[in-house]
Amino acid sequence: MKCLNVAPDARVERVKLQKFGLNSSDLECYKLTDISQSPSSTPLLQHHCSRVSLHRKMATLEAIKYSRGKLLVLDQLRLPHEHHYDEISTAEEAFDCIRSMRVRGAPAIAIVAALAHAVELHNGSCTANTPEEIITHIDSRLDYLKESRPTAVDLSNAINLLKSAVRAAQIEGKKHPEARDAILSAYITAAERILERDLKTNKAIGAFGASWLQQQYDATSERPISVLTHCNTGSLATSGHGTALGIIRSLHENGLLKHAYCTETRPYNQGSRLTSFELVFEGIPSTLITDSMAGALFNLHREHMNIGAVIVGADRVVRNGDTANKIGTYSLAVLARHHGVKFVVAAPTTSIDLETETGKGIKIEERKAEELTQISGAVVNSDGSIDTKRSVRVAIADQRIGVWNPAFDVTPNELIDAIVTEKGTVVKGADGKFDFSVVMPERWAAIVDSKA
Amino acid sequence: MKCLNVAPDARVERVKLQKFGLNSSDLECYKLTDISQSPSSTPLLQHHCSRVSLHRKMATLEAIKYSRGKLLVLDQLRLPHEHHYDEISTAEEAFDCIRSMRVRGAPAIAIVAALAHAVELHNGSCTANTPEEIITHIDSRLDYLKESRPTAVDLSNAINLLKSAVRAAQIEGKKHPEARDAILSAYITAAERILERDLKTNKAIGAFGASWLQQQYDATSERPISVLTHCNTGSLATSGHGTALGIIRSLHENGLLKHAYCTETRPYNQGSRLTSFELVFEGIPSTLITDSMAGALFNLHREHMNIGAVIVGADRVVRNGDTANKIGTYSLAVLARHHGVKFVVAAPTTSIDLETETGKGIKIEERKAEELTQISGAVVNSDGSIDTKRSVRVAIADQRIGVWNPAFDVTPNELIDAIVTEKGTVVKGADGKFDFSVVMPERWAAIVDSKA
Repeated sequence: MKCLNVAPDARVERVKLQKFGLNSSDLECYKLTDISQSPSSTPLLQHHCSRVSLHRKMATLEAIKYSRGKLLVLDQLRLPHEHHYDEISTAEEAFDCIRSMRVRGAPAIAIVAALAHAVELHNGSCTANTPEEIITHIDSRLDYLKESRPTAVDLSNAINLLKSAVRAAQIEGKKHPEARDAILSAYITAAERILERDLKTNKAIGAFGASWLQQQYDATSERPISVLTHCNTGSLATSGHGTALGIIRSLHENGLLKHAYCTETRPYNQGSRLTSFELVFEGIPSTLITDSMAGALFNLHREHMNIGAVIVGADRVVRNGDTANKIGTYSLAVLARHHGVKFVVAAPTTSIDLETETGKGIKIEERKAEELTQISGAVVNSDGSIDTKRSVRVAIADQRIGVWNPAFDVTPNELIDAIVTEKGTVVKGADGKFDFSVVMPERWAAIVDSKA
Repeated sequence: MKCLNVAPDARVERVKLQKFGLNSSDLECYKLTDISQSPSSTPLLQHHCSRVSLHRKMATLEAIKYSRGKLLVLDQLRLPHEHHYDEISTAEEAFDCIRSMRVRGAPAIAIVAALAHAVELHNGSCTANTPEEIITHIDSRLDYLKESRPTAVDLSNAINLLKSAVRAAQIEGKKHPEARDAILSAYITAAERILERDLKTNKAIGAFGASWLQQQYDATSERPISVLTHCNTGSLATSGHGTALGIIRSLHENGLLKHAYCTETRPYNQGSRLTSFELVFEGIPSTLITDSMAGALFNLHREHMNIGAVIVGADRVVRNGDTANKIGTYSLAVLARHHGVKFVVAAPTTSIDLETETGKGIKIEERKAEELTQISGAVVNSDGSIDTKRSVRVAIADQRIGVWNPAFDVTPNELIDAIVTEKGTVVKGADGKFDFSVVMPERWAAIVDSKA
């Protein structure tokens, strides 16, 4: 097992990562237990604003724009044809935004829910007085928000974290309104930290992934590399920067990216609708291909475009490194291996499931036929212009044909070269196996070692 | 080189092929030179009707319905939602049908053009009297038809053949109107033979391909095989039966097919629009997948579905067996090899280009971005019903993204297990090379041996 991990004394790694705009302290990710230790008695409006501004300073595409008391969320249903933000001021508005798929991506959903309640609390929505009543109020709002997407693990984890945070508020010896302010401040601080933590996680994954790829190919601004990505793993799915797309952003920011290719990602077209939008928005040199063109792309352009890697996200990475991700990922892994192109998975440690030993333990969700046989889009007028106000659903296949529509597939660990987490890049050791114990020693000890 | 060729004395092969509904005489394909030798002085309406009825007897889907004096062509733009035939009575109607893409597929285009003029001649469109004037009239109509799709090699070859046929009409010693009838009969006979020859070629390819696959897997009705195909190579692209889809039909007719999978075939969706329509029409057990699902399909279902082959058509097969075909074919070949699935190319000998030595000599056409970023379909109403009368074009990607849209790719011979022609199935010899000299000895001698 080889792991490029960040430790305060790892000077060489620190210097390398500084090139990617990060230093070691940036890479310390908040642990769940830290939240309850955070100071939460400072006045409501000033606390942690400097940290939150880290997000606002970014020049990149933002699915979520937040400043204390105000939350704007990009309407992804209108993409790529319209670039419209909804202002979300209440839990009800957040519920509707999530339920109607105007925001998508597991991290983004959790952040919108957490911050929407922070905004309404900040704006005085809670009229309860006693600590117990305030906590009951917050709990009920969170339980309501959870129902907007009951299967989302990130949302559920965020809600548990927020409930713990308000219970850990320092109210001893305080009376109303100081005790009330302390609880609300604890909530808002914890919600803002979810946003910050996600962004830091993404930036760290971007830096580690870009650094690892640079090493593999001795990439320089004179000899940059090209990459292919699949689905959407960017700012739209997260707080910003993204996971797989975060690595591409980091390569680009450091002059190491020659060209980014993105697949259409049938049947839901996250690549052509969302990733292509992000790439255009950021001015990253990029090209869209159909999923079926990846083989021809490698065959014809790998050499002169210096195509070095396929970089994908992960729905779940299991203990041996087998990775479930958007359907089509596995085919890309086979094609990458056939052409000597590296295959890189970008996954925060929260996506690594140590309980499940191999990919055989992953159940594949099959979705309805209409996702494949019908598609929605903005109407193209006869003069070729796009009528962004008129979205129409059309049938693009024989509606009677049987359809197989698995939502994702599993790529076996043997086809994966590196798994990039916010704690470092994990590659196979001399034994040909991935070992996640270095990037997540506590969970490894609790789950794997305790059972051994 | 091993070639399952049909020779009159090859009793075993004959018996095997009879199981697929063919005998050796059916497999004799017309050569260009034969046409000029054919009897063409019999009365206009009776000649060769028995041969043409071979086509009408088929229970399979027909893109082209023909009886002397009447031509019906299935409007493929209305597929899969409507099943409408246009009656084509003139060269002008054929021109419009081809130009507007209501008929597609190189063989089908040539047949429609040839037969449309046969219909108008049969119905008395030619008022010229002298043989010279009649031939000038026919030439001018054919030259006009050629412009409907100037790049189509099949159309161009058919026109050359028809021009030769009328010049070879037996008019010596005949006067008007016998000489006139002889020329018109020569034209009509030659046009009908193009239809017959294409159908026989397809039936032979189907029989040879099914027979070869049966051998590879010891397939029986108790142990049938499943296959995957790409694009549309069926009745809609040809006179009937099809090439790659012809092999699937032949397997099905003989109880050897467990299941047919077809890819969507982005970006033009020939698989989901046309092949899925054909499979449903014929009642062949079948499933549509996106191009990106092929790897997952092999990985999860190869074993229990007994997936034995990917079967594709060919735009061009060059001398060493490298094959140009619809984009996505190459990726499927890599995936098939990775999973131990055979990769079979179905190609009439007319698609084999002995002049070009390797796939490096094939230029890849790149098409416009809108084919990938926009799509047309029938409107889906809010209640889920399809409004087949309303076709709308919608934008399904960011319109500003750069697009790479190659129309086809080249699969190298090393990934191909068999190339099925109407003269037999060609597999690699002990030297690892394909040798087409057995299936096309005359062209091989003229092109390859003469240069050696």
